Amino acid sequence: MPTVSIVYFSGGGHTAAFAEAAATGARSVADTTVNLLRIEGKDIIEGRYKNDAVLATLTASDAIIFGSPTYMAGPSGQFKTFADATGGIWFQQLWKDKLAAGFTVSAGASGDKLNTLEYFFLLSQQHGMVWIGTGVLPYATGAINRFSFSSGAAGQANQEPPDEMPNADDKGTAEHLGRRVATAAARWGKA
Amino acid sequence: MPTVSIVYFSGGGHTAAFAEAAATGARSVADTTVNLLRIEGKDIIEGRYKNDAVLATLTASDAIIFGSPTYMAGPSGQFKTFADATGGIWFQQLWKDKLAAGFTVSAGASGDKLNTLEYFFLLSQQHGMVWIGTGVLPYATGAINRFSFSSGAAGQANQEPPDEMPNADDKGTAEHLGRRVATAAARWGKA
Amino acid sequence: MPTVSIVYFSGGGHTAAFAEAAATGARSVADTTVNLLRIEGKDIIEGRYKNDAVLATLTASDAIIFGSPTYMAGPSGQFKTFADATGGIWFQQLWKDKLAAGFTVSAGASGDKLNTLEYFFLLSQQHGMVWIGTGVLPYATGAINRFSFSSGAAGQANQEPPDEMPNADDKGTAEHLGRRVATAAARWGKA
Amino acid sequence: MPTVSIVYFSGGGHTAAFAEAAATGARSVADTTVNLLRIEGKDIIEGRYKNDAVLATLTASDAIIFGSPTYMAGPSGQFKTFADATGGIWFQQLWKDKLAAGFTVSAGASGDKLNTLEYFFLLSQQHGMVWIGTGVLPYATGAINRFSFSSGAAGQANQEPPDEMPNADDKGTAEHLGRRVATAAARWGKA
Repeated sequence: MPTVSIVYFSGGGHTAAFAEAAATGARSVADTTVNLLRIEGKDIIEGRYKNDAVLATLTASDAIIFGSPTYMAGPSGQFKTFADATGGIWFQQLWKDKLAAGFTVSAGASGDKLNTLEYFFLLSQQHGMVWIGTGVLPYATGAINRFSFSSGAAGQANQEPPDEMPNADDKGTAEHLGRRVATAAARWGKA
Repeated sequence: MPTVSIVYFSGGGHTAAFAEAAATGARSVADTTVNLLRIEGKDIIEGRYKNDAVLATLTASDAIIFGSPTYMAGPSGQFKTFADATGGIWFQQLWKDKLAAGFTVSAGASGDKLNTLEYFFLLSQQHGMVWIGTGVLPYATGAINRFSFSSGAAGQANQEPPDEMPNADDKGTAEHLGRRVATAAARWGKA
Repeated sequence: MPTVSIVYFSGGGHTAAFAEAAATGARSVADTTVNLLRIEGKDIIEGRYKNDAVLATLTASDAIIFGSPTYMAGPSGQFKTFADATGGIWFQQLWKDKLAAGFTVSAGASGDKLNTLEYFFLLSQQHGMVWIGTGVLPYATGAINRFSFSSGAAGQANQEPPDEMPNADDKGTAEHLGRRVATAAARWGKA
Repeated sequence: MPTVSIVYFSGGGHTAAFAEAAATGARSVADTTVNLLRIEGKDIIEGRYKNDAVLATLTASDAIIFGSPTYMAGPSGQFKTFADATGGIWFQQLWKDKLAAGFTVSAGASGDKLNTLEYFFLLSQQHGMVWIGTGVLPYATGAINRFSFSSGAAGQANQEPPDEMPNADDKGTAEHLGRRVATAAARWGKA
């Protein structure tokens, strides 16, 4: 019964919609517990994130999926303050050997979304986590992964309502990733 | 008479010491005006940075040097909130064709410092800026650049007092970078 | 009278078409000399590139634009053997303070094209070069830059003939970059 | 009984020594079969790598560790030609869900080693593989990981004999990584 937690920031709601899709995918795997944890601006005081309950839930998980819009070529500042707040966890390596994955949304087809996914990867490696990407060919096996990323799920949205964009294909990519992480968590098992 | 501005975040003072060294280098070039601008936690409300005076000073500059400690494999959250706050400037491309450079400090010899420097680079490219690295061979021509980075200046400091670490060699790297940027700004001139 | 050299590898001809577009852009700037240099497989012996004439032409240039398809998440192996062959130039820093830029083409909308552009950037930084990106907003000011990269020009092509793909919009991005580099080379001038 | 294969290029023998250390680590885990596969220049014809036996051995493995010196800010050209030769494997996703890891050696303390490790990561993600880093704190728990990388193992060597450099601490990092990958392969098991 693995626990998959999705921790994300969303400004306008597009990344929240993406996170919901990832949660749907993870929940579709039998016996998976899914936590959907939103990083809230109110928990960021003078640029430092503090929410012990969120961190404790993550530490109790088997897999963590990181999500953020790509703002100005990287993860949002709000997400980064959250990441910085995991320094104590890092020092104790409490997340070591958990599974990790990530997703991002931005207005452009590519933008610098890859840099955000690479950041999630590097964060996971400092924590000693094991990284799982999308594991699906681009533009090949169906409608998903239209932007042809491999390291994580990527979606596009600009000013449209979050229920329209990211579109169904993008949400399908996020859902696929959630399912893949939950499946891997069951296989990976407890140490 | 180029203006070089250094905008940086510093938690414990090590990156501030590095920024001072870069400023010293830039000031050593005749007719250069240098602004040293620290990103302050008090200007970050719920994860959003706001300081119009800092942004206006940067927009009035010919070159901008970005600086941040490397926290958890990337620029500090505080720096990232600043970067996100330049979205309006980006949309108008007000920093287009300015020179850009960067520096970072962390506890490890390498850590993921390169990722922070690459982030500064990507940020500069979204702004249409022109990037200048250190332009010095590693471990070869003297004491500076002991960590052999090329994209920007890198220093190491852990819990030591900021006047001790980053050490003189590292500060020499930052000073070299500041001088190089100021020299390039004079050569590049006004559009 | 700046000299802009474009050095690129092309497997199926798509990147060659992109290089031609960049050359067209550079030639459109008055008094610019443009060299179009293709990396040829026959110059790669047991994985080591050797062509002194190509390297000498580059060393005599004011700006160098690097181009390669993105194969398996990075620059093509052929391009990388060329890059490795610049080690002697690097050691003497013969390309220091030249301008640098880059472009890439791959089958996916994003693929890992950003990683290829970042590689070109890191290569340029080891050489002490000054990097110029596209300097154009994505999806905003017209038809170019449809994949919303900033660090360099990006195009898409799969199995189509090179005169069809990359399409006119993509080639416009490459042409824009060539023009921008040539204009910057005139401004940057001789040391 | 997992099979761990290490595929690497080595120019002067330093990376070969590192690969041996990784193999030693993997062999120390009971019931692990280890293949040490060197990428040879003679298999690279006009910049294209061809060795079906090497690729078949990798496809029959449970985990693959990639290794290369960092040359000019990235993996060696020889390694990249090997990576490009996996395009057919990629298209069929024959390496999907295998474990992946990586190591690199260069003359500088940092150089751009992180970029080589990130390249290995991106390559693994295109193949749908699952990435395992070092999982050890930097400079903290003993002599290993002196350059404080997390994504993979890193060593330093210049012109010294390969039995001297990378030094014992660096080789210990590679050995640690090999052991970690073999342990993870047993845990991950067959699909």
